[in-house]
Parts: sequence; structure tokens; C-alpha cells
Amino acid sequence: MTAKKILMVVCDGVSDRPVKQFEGKTPLQVARKPAMDAVARNGVSGTMDVIAPGVIPGSDTAHLALFGYDPYRVYTGRGPIEAAGAEIPLVEGDVAFRCNFATSDDHMRITDRRAGRIRSGTAELATALSGMKVEDVEVIFKEASEHRAVLVLRGPGLDHRVTEVDPHREGEILKARAESPDAEKTARILNAFVEKSYDILSKHPVNKRREKEGLPPANIILPRGAGSLGELEPLPQRFGMKCAAVAGVTLVKGICRMVGMDVPDVEGATGALDTDYTAKAEAAIGLLEENDLVFINVKAPDIAGHDGDFQGKVLAIENIDMMLGRILESIHEEAVVVLTADHSTPVTVKDHSADPVPVAVSGADSRVDGVRAFDEISAASGAIGRIRGMDLLPIVLGMANRSSKFGA
Amino acid sequence: MTAKKILMVVCDGVSDRPVKQFEGKTPLQVARKPAMDAVARNGVSGTMDVIAPGVIPGSDTAHLALFGYDPYRVYTGRGPIEAAGAEIPLVEGDVAFRCNFATSDDHMRITDRRAGRIRSGTAELATALSGMKVEDVEVIFKEASEHRAVLVLRGPGLDHRVTEVDPHREGEILKARAESPDAEKTARILNAFVEKSYDILSKHPVNKRREKEGLPPANIILPRGAGSLGELEPLPQRFGMKCAAVAGVTLVKGICRMVGMDVPDVEGATGALDTDYTAKAEAAIGLLEENDLVFINVKAPDIAGHDGDFQGKVLAIENIDMMLGRILESIHEEAVVVLTADHSTPVTVKDHSADPVPVAVSGADSRVDGVRAFDEISAASGAIGRIRGMDLLPIVLGMANRSSKFGA
Repeated sequence: MTAKKILMVVCDGVSDRPVKQFEGKTPLQVARKPAMDAVARNGVSGTMDVIAPGVIPGSDTAHLALFGYDPYRVYTGRGPIEAAGAEIPLVEGDVAFRCNFATSDDHMRITDRRAGRIRSGTAELATALSGMKVEDVEVIFKEASEHRAVLVLRGPGLDHRVTEVDPHREGEILKARAESPDAEKTARILNAFVEKSYDILSKHPVNKRREKEGLPPANIILPRGAGSLGELEPLPQRFGMKCAAVAGVTLVKGICRMVGMDVPDVEGATGALDTDYTAKAEAAIGLLEENDLVFINVKAPDIAGHDGDFQGKVLAIENIDMMLGRILESIHEEAVVVLTADHSTPVTVKDHSADPVPVAVSGADSRVDGVRAFDEISAASGAIGRIRGMDLLPIVLGMANRSSKFGA
Repeated sequence: MTAKKILMVVCDGVSDRPVKQFEGKTPLQVARKPAMDAVARNGVSGTMDVIAPGVIPGSDTAHLALFGYDPYRVYTGRGPIEAAGAEIPLVEGDVAFRCNFATSDDHMRITDRRAGRIRSGTAELATALSGMKVEDVEVIFKEASEHRAVLVLRGPGLDHRVTEVDPHREGEILKARAESPDAEKTARILNAFVEKSYDILSKHPVNKRREKEGLPPANIILPRGAGSLGELEPLPQRFGMKCAAVAGVTLVKGICRMVGMDVPDVEGATGALDTDYTAKAEAAIGLLEENDLVFINVKAPDIAGHDGDFQGKVLAIENIDMMLGRILESIHEEAVVVLTADHSTPVTVKDHSADPVPVAVSGADSRVDGVRAFDEISAASGAIGRIRGMDLLPIVLGMANRSSKFGA
């Protein structure tokens, strides 16, 4: 029994609802997509509730489910994913937060939640905060894009169940409160850190300069989205597979890193509508040489969905199809190919929806049902039936001869 | 509403993958099987993850699921099933082990894990061990086939979470360790038992005789597969049904006994390719007179699957079909008939796989979907949809008017 390689292609938000102006069809039903249809035709199809029936998936929770984790168990908040995106490796017991650089007056009232969308100098500001100790807890602090940053508290007796400091609007900042007795220390440390951030940042040369230039100083940190690692055993350890990802969006990259994937930077893979599909295809083909599982996320259909742009979504699908066709040509039938979405982003909704997504899986000796196209309705009559997101990877591992036995 | 009898036929390992050399068909798609197809045609079909999506079922865990138990709750290890097979009734708190009679040198190093595949004298050796006390724990020990045996520890404060003593190869025996603080006592008793087994067996006349004959003495016991009973309420108590089984394989017989089935010996039912299908049919017909549920396991397709023998599997299927035809003729439409597999054993894999299995259920007033054949692909479009193994028996009980109501 030879273990096969796995290619998983997630067309972000591609799943949709029928649109009256387009003959009651979905973008997937309108697009010309020979490669996607070939995956459906040569394998088995189904529909999938990525989180659970009637639950609208977030991009973060959806990808955790697609990677075989129960999002209700491993997802405690956005912080750890941002930390992974910023390449801060977390250890057990860490509590991570998304943060904003913000502007406060002398009375700890927020006057600008994004410090004038500060773009430069955040690295120096972060350095001034990172490495400090509050009680016996180490502070790791790193800037991210624009006004964003990541805070990690590391030390004994921490717990992520604290309320947010960020008031989510101008005005008084909030004091973090413990939502569990175990989190009292974390709340205390977090509040002390926020105060210290003001003491340190308000005197920082970067801010003195900004004030001279009439810009709001980035003189306080607003943490939110506290989370800890959860019991997330990375894919390589869990399944003995080398895994890599091709993704443009920071959030998706963060999740991929968190689950143990190698995430090389691919030039031109922007996570936008203008992403370089050929570059993605070539990157995936290269990664398939060295890895057991290669994951690709293409964000474009989701963006078109959020924009309510039916034609844009059709175009994104046809671009992904060309990318997929190029990869399929190169791998022949040697890998198990999985094609799906992380959630629906119907153009009529302009946001994520709870509609199940189509899924198709093919491989050299996979069963073949009668489904001949990859779309929301065709997939629903396939042999996979209706599954949950977290069951997908186990099913695919089974088809790739990578499962383990329970019992004797 | 009259409660109906139930006939459940498990074609062991019959489920498969398409095979290129046979026009991309599975053995079930090639075999001539009018009786099986009649069950599909006259009832409803579906596919089934016997344990869970992407999990390869063992024969033991699979049958527990088919009998309506959650294998993750009731299966702690192979020991209790072996105990049931050896007809040692377990009580709550017992910890049971599969054992080998093995050969050790003077320094507790194993020189032969099977004591030269000892065939005679094991009953006398077992008697010399059974009934002893280690601290306040009673030892029940019984020989099984060839070098195999069963150990049951009975007494207060035992727990099955101990590591194995059997090193699974020649060399130093392992000391059992507790995997939970609750299992410290069990580990201590188990290690003491193994030492005592050497003291007693190495002096035993059976072994003195073997040594004279130049055979390796069966002078030590190697326990493994520790398990305790789990919360397994037998089927007769759980559902108020009298149940019986026709099976040739010891393991399956053990599970059937464990869940409260009567398991008469059927002459010619060998659990091998040459099993007497007519004898099985007649036995089942006889048992259906007196019982509410009759279960048949036929091992032959699994054996052909392990051998990678497509034609052999087709033949096994056609033989089972004849057996089933004979039974259907006799019971007319009076019973609900369930046809399925415990797992896939694809001829291309030569081992169990995680691929879902087909299931078909028919009865006089059952719903009828459009499925006209019993095979992996046809079943997937049936009205049952995709279910888990442990949901099958409740569904069948419902169709047989044997369910109970929740609520008013």
C-alpha cells in the first residue's frame, strides 16, 4: 500500500447561491472550468458544512477545520493565528493577542484607534516594548502590517480568558477582566503592560517626531483577541507528513504555519484579484516534489463575492482552473487531488454565509461516482454525501493510503 | 405495529476500490449476485463510515460499531474480546489481556515469543497459573489456540491503562508501566504475575518433558492488549431481543458473545475460503425461528482482499449470494434484511482501508429508493445517505418496529 501525495486546492469563498440575473445559476455553474470538472468526473463529490450545519465559517476557523482540527476545541481566539503569521513560535502556556498601535490622551482615553494608520516606525516602537518583564512574565511584541501588532505573554500561570482592552471605538480604554479565576494574573499583567506601553511609547523618539509632524502619536497598545495554543498537534507530527502551503493572505499563511506547514513566499502571490496564478501553479508543482501534502489557497473568488461581483467571480474561477490544469498536467494521476472552498461568499450576500460548499476528490484508484461538474448542485448528488469540514482531511488521508487503524 | 425479525449479513471486508485491470470495477460490481441486488432493489441503500470518516476499522472495533456501540467508549483493548472468545465471563473492574506462552532464558530474556508454537500441554500449564492470588487480586488464566492464552485480573482498584509486557520481538521483556496513576497497582500485579509465571512454569512437568524433547519450554507468559469491560450493555438487555450469530472466526465469535448473542458452533463454518455456505444458511434459518436478530459474518471476501485476489473475492461474493438467496427464500419478506461489510479490504491495498462500505436494508414495508445493485457506487446514491457504523443498528431497529420513543 503506497502512500500518495495530496494536493488540496481551496478556492476561497467560491461557493455561492443561484443568481436570478444569471439564469438562476451560480458563478461555478457559469464558469468554463475543464480542470475542476475533471477532478469531479474522475473521483467522488459531496457537500460540506465546513464548521457545522448553519454555522457561518470564519476564514480562520474554516481553515482549521479543513486541516482536520475541531475548531471548537483548538480555536480560542485570533491572537495565536496572528502570532503564527508574524512568525512568533508559541509554546504551551503562552497567551497571544492581536494589537493595534493607537493614540491616547493623558487620561488614557483613545483619540485614534489606529494612530493615524501609522505605516513607518512601528518596528522601532515594537523593539522598545519587546523583552520587558511584567512580574515574572516575559513580553514578546512584534509589529505587523500598518497599525497592527502581536503581543505574546510568556510565563507561568497565564490563561487566555480575559476581556478585551480595545474599546473598539474612540473613548476610555477598557480594563481587562478575568473571565475565569485562572485568568486573574493574566488580566493584571495585561493591564500593567498597557500602562507601561503608554509610559514607554509616549516618550519614544518616533512619537516625538510624529507629534512634530502633526501626526497622532502611536503611544499606546490596544490588545484584543486573546488566545492560547489549544491542543493543536501539527500535521507533520499528527500524520507523519511533510506539508507546505501556497497562500497570499497573511491570515491563511498564519494558520498554515500554525499547523506545521512550510509556507514559502511566492513572488506575485498577492492574495488579491491580480495574484499571479502561473507563479502559484509553478510553486505548487515544485513543492509537491518535496512534500506529502501541498495546500493552495486562492483568495480571489472571496474578494469578488464580498464585492458582489458575479462576473469577477467567474473570472477568478476560470483563472484558478487554468492554474489547476497546469498542476494536474504535471502530476498526472500520482496524487490525490482535493478541490473545495473554505466557505460560501455569495455575491448576493456580499459576506460569508452558512451554505454548504462543494467538494471533489480524485486519485488514481479512487471510486468514481456519476458527478460530472464541480459546482454546488452537482456535488450534492455525489458519493461523498454531506460531511463536516473536519472530516475532509481524514477522508482524503484514507484515499491516499495514509490512515491509521483503530482496533485490530 | 408488529416487531419484525432482523437478519444482518456482514460480508467481511467485501468493500473495495475500482481496479483498472477489471474495467475500473470493484469485485461487487463484477460479481453475479441476484440475492444481494434484490435486497438493494427492494429497500434503501447508503454508505457507511464504520468507525468514523477516514478511520481504518479493525475487525473488533468494526463489529462493536455494527452492533450499535460507540467503539471509542467500549473498546479499551483486545483483552476483553479474547476473554469473551475463551468464554470467561468478565465482571466490572476486571482487566483482561491477550497472552502468549513464550520461552525465556534465566535472565528474563525472551528467546521465542511463541514457545515453538506450542500446541499441546497448554491446558495443564494454564491450570498451574489460574486461581493464584497476587496481593488481593485473583488470577484467571485460560489457554486459547496454539501458543495463545487469556489472562484476567479480578480484584479491587484495577485499571487497564498499563503498557505491554510483550516486547513483540526476541529480547528483554518489558516491565508494565502505569499510563495513569490509577493503574499503578495493576502494573505492579501484572509484573509480579509475569515473574511468578516463570517460577511456576519453568518447573512444570510439561516443560521438563519439552526440554527433554529438545523443544523450547513455554516457561513465561507475555500479556498484551490490556482492556476492561467498558460500559457495554448486552443487546438482549438493551433492546429486549434474543440474538444469535453464525460466525467462523474466533475474534468475531468473541465479540458476538460479548454483546450477548448466542453463538452455536456450526459444523463447516470455518472462517476460511472453504467455509460451508449451505451449512451457514441452514444454521441461520434455524436460528431465525427462535431469535429476534440473527447475525452472520462471512470471512471469505476479507481473506481474498488480503491476498489481493480479485477473482477469489468475486467467487466469495457469489457464494455468499447463494447463501443469502437460500435464506431469503425461506424467510420471504417477514424479516428486515441488512447487508453490509465491517470494512473495506481492497485487493489493491491487501489490507483494511478507510473507504466507506455499502449498506442495504430491506423489509416488507421499507421505503424503496432507486438503487438497483449492491455495490460501493450504487449504494452511495441511496436514501440512507452517509452514516456511521454505530447508527446502523438503531436505523434497522426502527425499520423493524423495535425502536423506543424519546419524549411524548
